[in-house]
Amino acid sequence: MRLEQAAQLIGARQAVIVSDENVTRLFGERFPPAARIVVEAGEGAKRLETAGAVYRRLAELEVDRATLLLGIGGGVVCDLAGFVAATYLRGLPCGLVATTLLAQVDAAIGGKNGVNLERFKNLVGTIRQPEFVICDLDLLQPLPLAEVQCGLAEIVKHALIADAALFERLERNAAPLLALDPQALADAVTSSVRIKTAVVGRDEQERGERRMLNFGHTLGHAIERVRGVSHGAAVSIGMRAAVELSVRKGWLPAPAAERIEGLLTRLGLPVRAEGEPAAIIEALRRDKKREGGRLHMVLLRRIGLAEVVSLPLAEVEAALAGG
Amino acid sequence: MRLEQAAQLIGARQAVIVSDENVTRLFGERFPPAARIVVEAGEGAKRLETAGAVYRRLAELEVDRATLLLGIGGGVVCDLAGFVAATYLRGLPCGLVATTLLAQVDAAIGGKNGVNLERFKNLVGTIRQPEFVICDLDLLQPLPLAEVQCGLAEIVKHALIADAALFERLERNAAPLLALDPQALADAVTSSVRIKTAVVGRDEQERGERRMLNFGHTLGHAIERVRGVSHGAAVSIGMRAAVELSVRKGWLPAPAAERIEGLLTRLGLPVRAEGEPAAIIEALRRDKKREGGRLHMVLLRRIGLAEVVSLPLAEVEAALAGG
Repeated sequence: MRLEQAAQLIGARQAVIVSDENVTRLFGERFPPAARIVVEAGEGAKRLETAGAVYRRLAELEVDRATLLLGIGGGVVCDLAGFVAATYLRGLPCGLVATTLLAQVDAAIGGKNGVNLERFKNLVGTIRQPEFVICDLDLLQPLPLAEVQCGLAEIVKHALIADAALFERLERNAAPLLALDPQALADAVTSSVRIKTAVVGRDEQERGERRMLNFGHTLGHAIERVRGVSHGAAVSIGMRAAVELSVRKGWLPAPAAERIEGLLTRLGLPVRAEGEPAAIIEALRRDKKREGGRLHMVLLRRIGLAEVVSLPLAEVEAALAGG
Repeated sequence: MRLEQAAQLIGARQAVIVSDENVTRLFGERFPPAARIVVEAGEGAKRLETAGAVYRRLAELEVDRATLLLGIGGGVVCDLAGFVAATYLRGLPCGLVATTLLAQVDAAIGGKNGVNLERFKNLVGTIRQPEFVICDLDLLQPLPLAEVQCGLAEIVKHALIADAALFERLERNAAPLLALDPQALADAVTSSVRIKTAVVGRDEQERGERRMLNFGHTLGHAIERVRGVSHGAAVSIGMRAAVELSVRKGWLPAPAAERIEGLLTRLGLPVRAEGEPAAIIEALRRDKKREGGRLHMVLLRRIGLAEVVSLPLAEVEAALAGG
């Protein structure tokens, strides 16, 4: 779908656009006609105070419940706009136009929205599905490589937990994907959206199957915090460690693990955390201290099939160190 | 139900209490054992900044999604606690103990929560049902008369839109109700909760029937803003004007209107706005200017049966002035 189709989906309704400075500069001319609320670019905008400023502006614009809020941007804008739409006047209709690969395959899909509160990521938010999400591949071109890799890591995750055929296509298309080849991207994005939408459709509130989407993320979040690497790099390292644990458990054959590590490497993603794993384990321990030295993790039965298990932290530490 | 039963409903779960200074001073000894977050008493606490402070405290307490948030207080605490529970970590289980008559018959029932943003009331919030609501009549004793009357106005509203038999009992019990007679109160509160819960159960998202609960409130909100009277007084005046419009429309017989005015008066509630109605009409016009000089209002077919109609503002003005 194209950004331009947003106008049809809004229809005769009033709309207000929430976007950031970068996205407005790059694509503002293509936005549908509507009042605009432009926030600063970057993670710093994902704060309760920014939500407060957007609420105030909506009140000044005398926005009522019939108005559609259209978020146009990356993960930060989608999360912020979705949260404001879920909470302004107890809920406005919401549409999202995702402009980064990560937003197209992950942040904009599934209805999770929210803001950070100081160092606490996504502390405040809701789960509420937008009326529509537009993933326009033309919007991806100006992205830095690190951001593309964030998206690719999530696409690999979707393949690993749910779609062996997609994994094979990703193996064939690694180079074109990194070069943002439109055809390879279209397949990867469409497949990812399909997989995530299906999982969320069966378990919106994350009581069961949706937890599979945390594959690579339990460790990934700790690695991101402790090592300060990008989200995509952290998730890649987290997935490799989860793969290693799956092999040690006797679930995943070693050749499959090698294929996974090979694909991540060819996508330019790191697969091992530098330095000692002790700090990462300590971060996990602090996070989960009420669970008594064990961790819920998503492991692979095979490529395309995941399962949640409870593991002792010591096993996780060994997998982070070795492999 | 009694406040003490909250402990059973929390069960083995961790809980955190949100309450205000007054309620904690009065009833803190009866609270179930749990960490407490105490906010200032009064409408001033119903702000996004207070929600932010509660989020921060919950993060410091390392509250996770298995923890129940227990709001103990009047409308402000119930609205604030419900909103925080709906948005912290995308949703905590929530229980409410309503300590004012208004909260017991209105604010705590139906899942609407939220905070004000400067002069905009309830601008930010969600609709989300709490796991349980406890209405303990013993908690009502220390209330000022004006607050009792706020609750009584909502009880009369429930009778008028849905329960003619309750209306007759209210007529018989006006004096005992004002004196907070336990038996009269128990009947009025139980009936109100039953009526509101049933309406909300059939139309949680306010697409149809739930709008009936706005009886007296369209005008009431404008009167409250313009005249600075209490919410209960404003709703009473708003209901009397809606009754007058119902009579003019030929729906409600004059004797029924007299009975309604008589009951409101015996409950110590005002039935006419002082001064000229022009300012009230102007406030309505500003609020609803996109609707082209017409107003959606809830009128009465008879005592116990309401209906939404669209009326020209001029007719509303006449009813506010005359009657």
